[in-house]
Amino acid sequence: MANDDQFKKVVSHAKEYGYIFGSSEIYDGLSAVYDYAQNGVELKKNIREYWWRSMVYMHQNIVGIDAAILMHPTTWKASGHVDAFNDPLIDNKDSKKRYRADVLVEDYAEKLEQKAQKEILKAKKRFGDAFDEAQFVATHPRVVKYREQKAEILNRMARSLEAEDLADVKALIEELGIADPDTGSKNWTDVKQFNLMFGTKLGASAESATDLYLRPETAQGIFVNFLNVQKTGRMKIPFGIAQTGKAFRNEIVARQFIFRMREFEQMEMQFFVRPGEEMKWYDYWKETRLKWHLSLGMGPENYRFHDHEKLAHYANAAADIEFNFPFGFKELEGIHSRTDFDLKAHEEFSGKKLQFFDPELNKNYTPYVVETSIGLDRMFLAVLSHSLQDETLDDGSTRVVLKLPSILAPTKAAILPLVKKDGLQEIAQEIVQQLQWDYNVSYDEKDAVGRRYRRQDAAGTPFCITVDHQTKEDNTVTIRDRDTMQQERIPIAEIASRLKTSTSYKKWLFNILN
Amino acid sequence: MANDDQFKKVVSHAKEYGYIFGSSEIYDGLSAVYDYAQNGVELKKNIREYWWRSMVYMHQNIVGIDAAILMHPTTWKASGHVDAFNDPLIDNKDSKKRYRADVLVEDYAEKLEQKAQKEILKAKKRFGDAFDEAQFVATHPRVVKYREQKAEILNRMARSLEAEDLADVKALIEELGIADPDTGSKNWTDVKQFNLMFGTKLGASAESATDLYLRPETAQGIFVNFLNVQKTGRMKIPFGIAQTGKAFRNEIVARQFIFRMREFEQMEMQFFVRPGEEMKWYDYWKETRLKWHLSLGMGPENYRFHDHEKLAHYANAAADIEFNFPFGFKELEGIHSRTDFDLKAHEEFSGKKLQFFDPELNKNYTPYVVETSIGLDRMFLAVLSHSLQDETLDDGSTRVVLKLPSILAPTKAAILPLVKKDGLQEIAQEIVQQLQWDYNVSYDEKDAVGRRYRRQDAAGTPFCITVDHQTKEDNTVTIRDRDTMQQERIPIAEIASRLKTSTSYKKWLFNILN
Repeated sequence: MANDDQFKKVVSHAKEYGYIFGSSEIYDGLSAVYDYAQNGVELKKNIREYWWRSMVYMHQNIVGIDAAILMHPTTWKASGHVDAFNDPLIDNKDSKKRYRADVLVEDYAEKLEQKAQKEILKAKKRFGDAFDEAQFVATHPRVVKYREQKAEILNRMARSLEAEDLADVKALIEELGIADPDTGSKNWTDVKQFNLMFGTKLGASAESATDLYLRPETAQGIFVNFLNVQKTGRMKIPFGIAQTGKAFRNEIVARQFIFRMREFEQMEMQFFVRPGEEMKWYDYWKETRLKWHLSLGMGPENYRFHDHEKLAHYANAAADIEFNFPFGFKELEGIHSRTDFDLKAHEEFSGKKLQFFDPELNKNYTPYVVETSIGLDRMFLAVLSHSLQDETLDDGSTRVVLKLPSILAPTKAAILPLVKKDGLQEIAQEIVQQLQWDYNVSYDEKDAVGRRYRRQDAAGTPFCITVDHQTKEDNTVTIRDRDTMQQERIPIAEIASRLKTSTSYKKWLFNILN
Repeated sequence: MANDDQFKKVVSHAKEYGYIFGSSEIYDGLSAVYDYAQNGVELKKNIREYWWRSMVYMHQNIVGIDAAILMHPTTWKASGHVDAFNDPLIDNKDSKKRYRADVLVEDYAEKLEQKAQKEILKAKKRFGDAFDEAQFVATHPRVVKYREQKAEILNRMARSLEAEDLADVKALIEELGIADPDTGSKNWTDVKQFNLMFGTKLGASAESATDLYLRPETAQGIFVNFLNVQKTGRMKIPFGIAQTGKAFRNEIVARQFIFRMREFEQMEMQFFVRPGEEMKWYDYWKETRLKWHLSLGMGPENYRFHDHEKLAHYANAAADIEFNFPFGFKELEGIHSRTDFDLKAHEEFSGKKLQFFDPELNKNYTPYVVETSIGLDRMFLAVLSHSLQDETLDDGSTRVVLKLPSILAPTKAAILPLVKKDGLQEIAQEIVQQLQWDYNVSYDEKDAVGRRYRRQDAAGTPFCITVDHQTKEDNTVTIRDRDTMQQERIPIAEIASRLKTSTSYKKWLFNILN
């Protein structure tokens, strides 16, 4: 199946099986905002909990917090977001459409690359085994020209943006003859920086209102609480503060379903360390976070590190963990060595010391920070898209199955009476009532049992428990495994322990600390 | 302990023991917004989960969703919030301070009541056992006058607000000579309606920006998703949709710590029923929700129903569950029979049918809705303030103990090596590692063990597990109960089952369905 088809399939499956709906769909939706449906809310909750336990419960030197979305506005002056959290935008005067100027230029450069690729492909076909790609690329006049142009364009834009020379970005767009992709018009406004934070006003009167922002990241909620947590929690360096929560960015080009949304949820952990020890911890967290991903069994080949060559102003090392999404390898999580940039900035703007007295060194210092930051919605998309599979069975028929890791599956088991009579429904209900204290289970009596199995497969339920006439004789049921489709007869009394074995945190998280 | 003192104590304890910090405290805070600290985040999470399990896992006909905070703006036209979610505000021209006009008048009326109470108290003291309060109140000239004035003022204000005659509300304030409580100035502006929703703008250019609101309640996210959930979840009436999440209200007078915040979290469930059957379900949910509260063991005397006499425009029955907060009985949860008001409004504004085909009745209808709506932050405050106790022990000494229900306690057990040598630390660490898969436990080796016990008492940890020299001989530890302070010697292998018995959902939630 082509990747593009797979992605479309994920999106429509997400709606059909109650994972994700467009926001406010009855009003034709709100662009780049989504709602989590009845199964989606459970998968999201389970991913969040899987992260929280691995971070907070399994590390005695990590605690959580839950800071508010609304923060004192000076927070965002200190963090640099008020002045520098911008996208360069340009409007087309005819179509009134707005674009990211840098994306227009990047798209143009990408077209040059595609032309070069086309030449390479053509030559490859013509020369067959004798083709020497490196030599061809280095010497073929058109390929050399396309690649040189591309590099020149991207370099010039990078320089102009760096120097905040937005007039030159516009000049570049005009020189290249870039047109509005929708209408072909080349009638552009000037390029302007546009801040990505959503603004709002606190308080009532126009006179006294305070300009607030919806937080564009959760990290600052941790930094401003650093000292309170350290003191009241009696924490000693190194220690971490973890947080999950909503953040908001007024993205102009938001796309790829829940991959880039205007309202999204982050799972971040800031680890405070001695200055000079940050690289040790940076390596530790790169490794530990990758182990966390691998623990879910979605295949090591689907993850890779991307080390940043160009670093953000606050970082002295940074890497992404990329996942193989249906649209290619893309950032899923970032691990950043943020130095003391944020704490120092808050010291400066608040006038308060944010230091730790290190009893071993017998001195005060502003800690360095190593951050792990993962998008919960991206993680959801990674799990969902990887799990959705079309299987051809031995008899030639096909089934759609959502092979979610059982620890993350919304419903752990469906309890099915084989028929709607002879007291089988009542027994099935009793089983539900036994399990519901510890597991999210469902009851389904509608349609033939084969159809119910397929429905549960597509919804991602790891186990189907079927109550039949033999159940009345010997208190056994069949338990069917979603992935193998094998059925086994077990006593009712064993169901709970089967679910426990399959969905215990110890089983799934055991290897992370080793 | 006076209630006011108790409340102050709760607030300072919440900070000292890592439950709640002021938001952005290093910038001197953001008014009426709070951050949940390292213990607070766990208590909040546990309350949310206790609610979620009782609603979603224990009811096969209730599912959850997680709708976005940003919704299509027409949602709030349909719900009535754009036009009618207002407070009447008045500014003092000298002090530039802003007040709720209705609260100024209510405070004035309250002062009349206090004067009446003073007379009653005086008479009670004078007459002793012979005092007939009913007769005194009915005949004493000053008491009668105060009460009459009070009723007259409140009635006039209610009539004026109902008729949207804001000029008369101002006239009332001036006639009564109400002054700015801070400065004494009587130089007032006109009264104006002020919408309580926080606004923001989606998209970039001033031209094309869409005016959005931060949702002021989570309920509408359920209503707009009603049909999607019903269809993809194959739900049959009666069924419910549950949701927890943030909501925002630009309150002018926000106070009482986390009781009334500008950013807060709701736990709401909308139950869709056949028209005509709503009163049956209204009664069911009143009873079931009260059972949920009682299951936590905080004393039936601390809860009471308050049935609304005056109903909101969308309701045909409504009641609050009030809790005995340190500042008196106040609303903790609301149960509302909302009729088909919301679904009908969304049908009208979206042009889409939001109906259910009832196979038993063989007809389509717009369902009626019974809502249960509880403030997570208020529930947090109820639990925290009820649990905080000063105890005088047998030996005359005192201890501060936070008697949180163990199912909600942030940390289930603290593992303490008696001394920092002889290998006791390593054994304690091993115990932590055994338990951490299933429980949030902590390790504490600092200070004498008696001080550590007190610290854990104050933090609300139900059990302390102490590793001593005998542990090395026979693999036993002592387990100390927070509430009784009794210690018992048990094998290490039994710790997990002790924690499980004490913190299982079955134990705590068992009586809700009976």
